[in-house]
Amino acid sequence: MNVPPPDLALAAALFAQLRRDGHDGVGITRDAYGLGEQRAHDEAERLARALDLEIAHDAALNLYLTLPGRDRRAPRVMTGSHLDSVPAGGNYDGAAGVVAGLAVLAGWRAAGFVPPADVTVMAVRAEESTWFPYSYLGSKAAFGLVGRDALQLRRADTGRPLAEHLAECGGDPAAFGAAWLDPARIARFVELHIEQGPVLVDEALPVGIVTGIRGSLRYRDARVLGSYAHSGAVPRAGRRDAVRAAALLVAALDDDWERLEAQGRDLVVTFGKFSTDPAQHAFSKVAGEVDLCVDVRSQDRAMLDEVDALLDAHARRLAQATGTRIELGPRTGSEPALMDAGVQEALAAAAARHGIAARRMASGAGHDAAVFAQRGVPTGMVFVRNDHGSHNPDEHMDMDDFALGTRLLADVLATP
Amino acid sequence: MNVPPPDLALAAALFAQLRRDGHDGVGITRDAYGLGEQRAHDEAERLARALDLEIAHDAALNLYLTLPGRDRRAPRVMTGSHLDSVPAGGNYDGAAGVVAGLAVLAGWRAAGFVPPADVTVMAVRAEESTWFPYSYLGSKAAFGLVGRDALQLRRADTGRPLAEHLAECGGDPAAFGAAWLDPARIARFVELHIEQGPVLVDEALPVGIVTGIRGSLRYRDARVLGSYAHSGAVPRAGRRDAVRAAALLVAALDDDWERLEAQGRDLVVTFGKFSTDPAQHAFSKVAGEVDLCVDVRSQDRAMLDEVDALLDAHARRLAQATGTRIELGPRTGSEPALMDAGVQEALAAAAARHGIAARRMASGAGHDAAVFAQRGVPTGMVFVRNDHGSHNPDEHMDMDDFALGTRLLADVLATP
Repeated sequence: MNVPPPDLALAAALFAQLRRDGHDGVGITRDAYGLGEQRAHDEAERLARALDLEIAHDAALNLYLTLPGRDRRAPRVMTGSHLDSVPAGGNYDGAAGVVAGLAVLAGWRAAGFVPPADVTVMAVRAEESTWFPYSYLGSKAAFGLVGRDALQLRRADTGRPLAEHLAECGGDPAAFGAAWLDPARIARFVELHIEQGPVLVDEALPVGIVTGIRGSLRYRDARVLGSYAHSGAVPRAGRRDAVRAAALLVAALDDDWERLEAQGRDLVVTFGKFSTDPAQHAFSKVAGEVDLCVDVRSQDRAMLDEVDALLDAHARRLAQATGTRIELGPRTGSEPALMDAGVQEALAAAAARHGIAARRMASGAGHDAAVFAQRGVPTGMVFVRNDHGSHNPDEHMDMDDFALGTRLLADVLATP
Repeated sequence: MNVPPPDLALAAALFAQLRRDGHDGVGITRDAYGLGEQRAHDEAERLARALDLEIAHDAALNLYLTLPGRDRRAPRVMTGSHLDSVPAGGNYDGAAGVVAGLAVLAGWRAAGFVPPADVTVMAVRAEESTWFPYSYLGSKAAFGLVGRDALQLRRADTGRPLAEHLAECGGDPAAFGAAWLDPARIARFVELHIEQGPVLVDEALPVGIVTGIRGSLRYRDARVLGSYAHSGAVPRAGRRDAVRAAALLVAALDDDWERLEAQGRDLVVTFGKFSTDPAQHAFSKVAGEVDLCVDVRSQDRAMLDEVDALLDAHARRLAQATGTRIELGPRTGSEPALMDAGVQEALAAAAARHGIAARRMASGAGHDAAVFAQRGVPTGMVFVRNDHGSHNPDEHMDMDDFALGTRLLADVLATP
C-alpha cells in the first residue's frame, strides 16, 4: 500500500488561523455552540469547499467532510475530533484531530489518490463538558443518543439553554435528537488527539496508540453540611465540623485508591474543588459547610461502580461519626470504552513500517472515540506527545510529532 | 458579710443602649478602636460620671472606673471585660462583663456600701483579634506588654494602622506602650463573660466557675502548593495534588486529637478554612493550591507545643509523599492560663451561699483574664449560660442568669 503523505503546510496554516480566531487575550476559547466553536467550524468548512469535499451537517450541527471513495456503497471510514475548547485553553486539544483529518484528505486530493471507501472527517460539537454539563454531547447526538430534554441544558457561562445557542449557530431545535450516524455503516473511527498527561513526554516518545478510554463517575456538586461554632469553646463530641468530615472522606477514598492500584486496578480519583464558604469561614470558627467535587475514572466499568459504593459507604459512616450531612448530589459521568484490537494492530504495523517509536497506553481523559466504541464501531486513537498538559494556554505540541501521528492516521484511513 | 445586690435595672438599661448604639442591620458591630467600640466606652464613662466613680484612661485608651474603698492604699480589686465585638456579633460577648461590674458598683452606691479596697471596672480595648491580628491587644497594653511596633498593625477591614485608629479615638500614639497596671497592686481580677460553648445550656446550669483558659496555636495563612493537572490523564504517582495533601494533613491531626483526648489531654483542633482557588479549581482538574487555617487550643502549654511538633512532622512527611509544598506560615496564638484556686473557692462558696447551681469548667475561648493570670494576679472568671454560641447575632443570655452571675461577682469583689 502506497498512501500519499498528509499536507502539513495546510495543517500549519489551519492551526495558525484557528489560533488567531480563538485567541481571547489569555488562551484559546472556542465556546461550545458559541462564536468560538462556530468560527472553527466555518474555517473547516471553507477549507473543505476548497478541497471539493462533500459537506453535511446533522441536527446537532456536527460537521461531516467527506472524500468519496472507489466503492461509495462500502461502509465509510471516519476520523475527526471536537472543535470546542475549554475557556482559556490551548489550540490543539480537539482541533488537532480535525486538522489531521483534513491534512490527510488534502494530501490525497493533491496526489489524486482515491481511497477504497468514503473517508469522512467529523468536526464534533461540544465535547468539553465545562460548557454544557453533559459528556460527549455532540458525538452522542450524532448517534441519536441525546434526548430532547437536553435542549434545556444551560451553558455554564451564559446560563442560557442549549436550544438558544443551537439556534444562534443556525441549527433547528425542532429537529434536534435525530440520528445521523448508523454504526453499521461505519467501518472504523480513528481519532487523533494530543495526550493530556505527561507519559509520552516522560518517555520521550512522539506518539501513543490508545488501548482504552477511561470512563468517569462524577459528583460535581457534593456538599458537607455541619454547624458553624466557636473553635475554642465547642468540645470534640459536640462538633459538626464540615471540614473534618470532608477531609476524612478524601483520606478514606485515597486509602482505597492506594489499595486498588496496588492490586493492579485502573483508577484515578480527584477532588478538584474543596471549599469552605469565604463569606463565613474564619480561623476561629468550626466550618459549617464545604462544597466539593469528586471525579473518578477507570477503564473498568465495574471499578467505577465499586468506587461509587465505597464513596457512599464512607459518606454514610462519616456523616454519622461527625454529626454532619453529606450530600453527594447528582451522579454524572461517562462509560469506559476499549479500543478495537484490529485498529490497534493496524496502527502498530504502520508505526513499524515508518520507523515511528510508539507505545500503547490508556487514555485517562474522555474522548468522542469512546462513543463510537460504545456503539460497536471498531475504534482507535492516536495520541500525539504534548507538553504542559492540556486545558491551559501552555499546551505545546511539536509539528514534527503531529506529522508522525498524522502519518499513522493516513495509513489506517486508507484501509477499507 | 452582707453585700448589697447589683442594680439590675441599670444593667438592663445599659444593655438596651449598647444594643441601639451597636446595631448594624444584621447584628452588633463594635469595631476595635473604631466608632462602635468608642460609643460603648462613651456610654460606660457617662454612667460612671452619674455614679460619681473615678475615671481614668491608659495610653491604649483602656477605661478604668473606680469606686474608692475604705483603705485606699490596699491593692485594688478589679473586674471588667472588653467592649468590642466581632463584626455582626451579639450584644453580650464582652459587654456583659463591663455591665456586670457597673451594676455591682451602682448597687453599692445606692446602698451606701463602701468596699474594703478600691474596686475598679475595666473596659478593655480590642479583645477580638478579628480586627487587629494580635491576641489580647488592650489588656496586654495595660500591662505595658505591647511593643510600639504594634502601632503599625493594620485593621483587617480598613487596612489602616492601629496608630491612626488610636488617634481617631482621642489617643496619643506617641504615648502608646507605657504600662498603667502593676500586677503587685492588684488583689484580684474577676471577669464575668457569657459561655461561648453549649456546656451550661446542655447541663441546664445558669453559671460556671472557670478553672482555666485555653491558650492557642494558630497558622492563619497556611498554604499547600501543588500543580494543576488533568484529573483523568495524570497518574497517581505523577500528581502533586494540593487537596489530597491538605486533607491527609487534617485527617492525620484528627487522629492525633482522638488519641490525645482518649489520654485525658485538653485539646481542640479546628481547620476553619480549607479552600481551593475559585478562579482555578474545576471538577476535572487536580488542584494546584489550597489555602487553610489551623487553630489549636489547650489549657496545657506543653500540649500546644506537642501538637505544633506533630503538625510540622505531618507537613514534612505529607509534602514529601504527595510532591507538594506545605507552608504553614507565621505562627500566632496565646498562652494558656490557670485560674486562681482561691478565687475559684470564693466563687464556689458564694454560689453555695446563694443556692446557685454552678459547675467548674475550662474556657475554650480566650479572655482578657488570661493576661491578668499570666502576670501573676489571682484571677477568676464567672461564665453565664448563653444559647446559640457567640460571635453571631443569635447569642442569647437570659437576664435571670446574668443576675445570678453578677451576684457571685459582687461577693468576690467585696472581699479585700
